Amino acid sequence: MRSLTVFPKEEYAGRLKKVKDKMAENGIDVLFLSDPANMNYLTGYDGWSFYVPQMVIIFLEDEEPYWFGRAQDVNGARATSWLSPCRLLSYSDEYVHSTTKHPMEVLAAWLTQHKKNVKRAGVEMEAYYFSPRALERLESGCKGITFIDANLLVNEIRLIKSKNEIGYMKKAGQIAALAMEAGVNAVKEGARVCDVAAAVSQAQIRGTDQFGGDYPSIVPLIPAGALTYAPHVTWTDEKIKAGDPLIIELAGCCSRYHAPLARTVTAGKPEPEFKRLSAAVIEGVETVLDYIKPGVTCEEVEQKWQSVIARYGFCKDSRIGYSIGINYPPDWGEHTASLRPGDKTVLRPNMAFHLIPGIWLEEMGVEISESFVVTKNGCETLSKYPQIEET
Amino acid sequence: MRSLTVFPKEEYAGRLKKVKDKMAENGIDVLFLSDPANMNYLTGYDGWSFYVPQMVIIFLEDEEPYWFGRAQDVNGARATSWLSPCRLLSYSDEYVHSTTKHPMEVLAAWLTQHKKNVKRAGVEMEAYYFSPRALERLESGCKGITFIDANLLVNEIRLIKSKNEIGYMKKAGQIAALAMEAGVNAVKEGARVCDVAAAVSQAQIRGTDQFGGDYPSIVPLIPAGALTYAPHVTWTDEKIKAGDPLIIELAGCCSRYHAPLARTVTAGKPEPEFKRLSAAVIEGVETVLDYIKPGVTCEEVEQKWQSVIARYGFCKDSRIGYSIGINYPPDWGEHTASLRPGDKTVLRPNMAFHLIPGIWLEEMGVEISESFVVTKNGCETLSKYPQIEET
Repeated sequence: MRSLTVFPKEEYAGRLKKVKDKMAENGIDVLFLSDPANMNYLTGYDGWSFYVPQMVIIFLEDEEPYWFGRAQDVNGARATSWLSPCRLLSYSDEYVHSTTKHPMEVLAAWLTQHKKNVKRAGVEMEAYYFSPRALERLESGCKGITFIDANLLVNEIRLIKSKNEIGYMKKAGQIAALAMEAGVNAVKEGARVCDVAAAVSQAQIRGTDQFGGDYPSIVPLIPAGALTYAPHVTWTDEKIKAGDPLIIELAGCCSRYHAPLARTVTAGKPEPEFKRLSAAVIEGVETVLDYIKPGVTCEEVEQKWQSVIARYGFCKDSRIGYSIGINYPPDWGEHTASLRPGDKTVLRPNMAFHLIPGIWLEEMGVEISESFVVTKNGCETLSKYPQIEET
Repeated sequence: MRSLTVFPKEEYAGRLKKVKDKMAENGIDVLFLSDPANMNYLTGYDGWSFYVPQMVIIFLEDEEPYWFGRAQDVNGARATSWLSPCRLLSYSDEYVHSTTKHPMEVLAAWLTQHKKNVKRAGVEMEAYYFSPRALERLESGCKGITFIDANLLVNEIRLIKSKNEIGYMKKAGQIAALAMEAGVNAVKEGARVCDVAAAVSQAQIRGTDQFGGDYPSIVPLIPAGALTYAPHVTWTDEKIKAGDPLIIELAGCCSRYHAPLARTVTAGKPEPEFKRLSAAVIEGVETVLDYIKPGVTCEEVEQKWQSVIARYGFCKDSRIGYSIGINYPPDWGEHTASLRPGDKTVLRPNMAFHLIPGIWLEEMGVEISESFVVTKNGCETLSKYPQIEET
């Protein structure tokens, strides 16, 4: 069958070269990647199989990485990655969710037998889907190898996007705008919040007539009414009441690349306090987007935001954004640059961020966000969707 | 605002008692739970916040557990859990995705100051969302405390469901049937696979007129055509061709309780080999469902399946099912009992399983599944949906 690999092989080769340069810098002979986004970034592998241990393994000395996963998922690796079939290693089902056996024992045994020159191994100590037991089994099976923390080694490389990657993010931005439109249109007095979520999800996956949508790393987050003070509540099946505010936070996703987008809408006329809060957030977002250009730092961007909302008498002590791109559940953030005090990352062209400066008061919250790519002279938002709605 | 906690407080109290009994048996003074399903099971806490470190902490000596999470998520814990506000501990945003600070440092400092009598701590060494670094920071911040692996301690208790839990699983089963119907109806020559996925997702979240749907722990898995040999591929935006088989694996979800369901359908007339494979799987499923009753073991159930497909000349070496219930991404399985050789778990009333004996050949796969609850004399499937479809 035809390969589903998303990028040309040269693009993967370029990424791999950057990773190996960093490995060499850090004296790492072998890098074990368990973050599904990093696995995909380097091999193209894409599947909902990260609920069992799996890895991409890069040897400094080897041309091609290895994929290691459940035997059942080898076919998926053949279909989606650019790797040669002989690079796909696997373990059998008796190792799945077993209390006595662990897939990392299989990997360690293979390594011990086939790669005798390895001295220093890098692992992702804070990646999702890499458990303390996985580390323990891998380490104890690999006698004589020193394990060091290589967390974010690949994520840092992902910060600057290629033209192809930005192409997918712009498609994701189009999907996000369509999904937001579907959600906003479903907000009506008497409708259920779950029906709004259903409309959003349908539009996210349908995508456009030209290209379909992928599943975003986070489901629609739609806190409504008094729940708007709780940003990570998903949705309920309560009916929407007149004047209720609803936060709709969602992303468009295309080939695993994300463009998140949040709006806060009300069913009918909003409360005066809601309008004042919205106005502050909108002015803050606009001011920040005008300010962004290559050369400014992440913490300067956050300062700009603070200066706007301070004039309204509000304060928000959490970060207002983070780097985005390719990702898998449970998060679309890249865990590298954050728009917050102390982050001195300098913005450079082709970095991409989700700017999400919500304000949550005791009884109400407003979130209005934009995803943007840093350009030569400023920035470009990924979705075109108006910033305030009363429905 | 009104509390969103799902079960009566007595039900949580009963669960907590069972957990404490097991803690006492194992000499554990304090149990750190990072599995979001276990957190919810004991406190009701529900939010898409598991992409940052969070925990429920149970002290053997204390009446009420503690919740520990990001400051921004305290409101969500107030809204969804039964815990008193003074039991909600938090860390500020400077600890989120930081390369220098870690939330577990905050938790360790609190513990050291307030709980001086703790000697032995249990942690979930193989739970999702508990990283090797989190363990390292927690351990090194808690001098004098011995850490032991308490993985699955709570999951084992979850194996037997209460009447209330089965009520939610039956609702989930109704949603699963509706979602399957929506998916099957969308399968047509010329339609895109993503449009089938969109229809499924919309139906999963809409639920019924009486109750809404929750997001399942796994997105719809819809490998089509030759991709049916790759069970964890999600979907593409390719058009469906006449005769193409499509696997639709999905779950209905209600208040985080799951009822998974899989069918394999074809757009138009199926190939003869597909029909032969389907017939074997259907006979296997039916034979197994007839066989199930309290007293038989998980491995005996799997043996029954093997005896049917052997007659057709097929073999399948992966497990054919697993325990299900409350869960969060990335998995709806409970990681305890599996229907496979070597698993000697004895079936008891009110256990629930997903029986999913797919067979994947070199170029094609068929999955037909049922979720069931073990009853006094046999079992009851959670969804009512026919087992074969040509559309």
